[in-house]
Amino acid sequence: MYSEKVMDHFQHPRNVGEIEDASGVGTVGNAKCGDIMRMFLDIDDETHIIKECKFKTFGCGAAVATSSMATEMVKGKTIEEAMQITNKAVMEALDGLPPVKVHCSLLAEEAIHAALWDYAQKH
Amino acid sequence: MYSEKVMDHFQHPRNVGEIEDASGVGTVGNAKCGDIMRMFLDIDDETHIIKECKFKTFGCGAAVATSSMATEMVKGKTIEEAMQITNKAVMEALDGLPPVKVHCSLLAEEAIHAALWDYAQKH
Ligand code: FES
Repeated sequence: MYSEKVMDHFQHPRNVGEIEDASGVGTVGNAKCGDIMRMFLDIDDETHIIKECKFKTFGCGAAVATSSMATEMVKGKTIEEAMQITNKAVMEALDGLPPVKVHCSLLAEEAIHAALWDYAQKH
Repeated sequence: MYSEKVMDHFQHPRNVGEIEDASGVGTVGNAKCGDIMRMFLDIDDETHIIKECKFKTFGCGAAVATSSMATEMVKGKTIEEAMQITNKAVMEALDGLPPVKVHCSLLAEEAIHAALWDYAQKH
């Protein structure tokens, strides 16, 4: 049912946690299942490079796996580059997700956008 | 949004894993969100007491917390007693769940029943 990469990122999620004094924080909820996610970004104010990215979620294994992969993809990118990362790209990097779990992968994309938005509003 | 007990069982879930040569195994899926759960029971054939109970799930934090609590409640009980444990009782033991997450708590009850059924069919 799930690809090896999904199971790997589910069982060994990368970048779980919080960032104290994060430059941007985004909290989003999934209307379909009621799950929540919070994303923390540490952004360099000069270069706009995302130095650190952490997440916490109450979501399911698919949400954990996509967030884990998304945070890995976001790190080292500029804000502008990070904005281009879609949940489709994250799912492709994970070798796909079952259709019923696609809504879970939206949590990561939305939370990253919310955190970038939070950063933009503060600057 | 979530009680302290829910957060405790979500962040430190009890009885996660598998039981090799389990007496009963139940696998169920959640139609609403597509999540899956597998429950393993080790039952004493003489006394019908559940000695060990472990679970694995791809489900969300609410599914993890209810399964963690349910496995704790099931351990040491007889098959007959375990059959009486409802998801309502498990939710009460967790000081409640938001209405939108009630369907997640059904996974644990259904998986325990499926594992007990599996045991009954083998004996
Ligand atoms: S079912 Fe809610 S995040 Fe996956």
